[in-house]
Amino acid sequence: MPLSRSTRCACITRSDQPVNPRSLEKLEVIPRSPSCPHVEIIVTMKKSKKQKCLNPESKTTKNLLKALSKERSKRSPQTQRKA
Amino acid sequence: MPLSRSTRCACITRSDQPVNPRSLEKLEVIPRSPSCPHVEIIVTMKKSKKQKCLNPESKTTKNLLKALSKERSKRSPQTQRKA
Repeated sequence: MPLSRSTRCACITRSDQPVNPRSLEKLEVIPRSPSCPHVEIIVTMKKSKKQKCLNPESKTTKNLLKALSKERSKRSPQTQRKA
Repeated sequence: MPLSRSTRCACITRSDQPVNPRSLEKLEVIPRSPSCPHVEIIVTMKKSKKQKCLNPESKTTKNLLKALSKERSKRSPQTQRKA
């Protein structure tokens, strides 16, 4: 539930629950700033379009970031089409 | 220059250049999907508000993700105010 009562941080609560990278439409990382002293990681779920805040410090979040940036497309890149 | 001519991927070119986490307003990770077979990482710069695509596979991008999710707020958390 990202919208916070004060206009400072977007996240009130932060989940440590693992998230399946395939269920994500998008993941946003908002670095700390004068308006919010915490790094915030907000995911948007594909199906429900709901947004959820993740705990940047938790192992599950770090693993998610690794999994997302490692994802190779299964099909060979367009440039190397099969003959 | 994230906007691509076709409506498939948001990114046409992807930078391997290091980016200073402090210069970022936001970083978005868009997992691959039916409309785009690549993971896309798009950063929005604080000052210029310009968007830039980063290469998810490059070391500089992985280091950036690590740096962003590690950032501790310098001030002690609100709950532990100095006496």
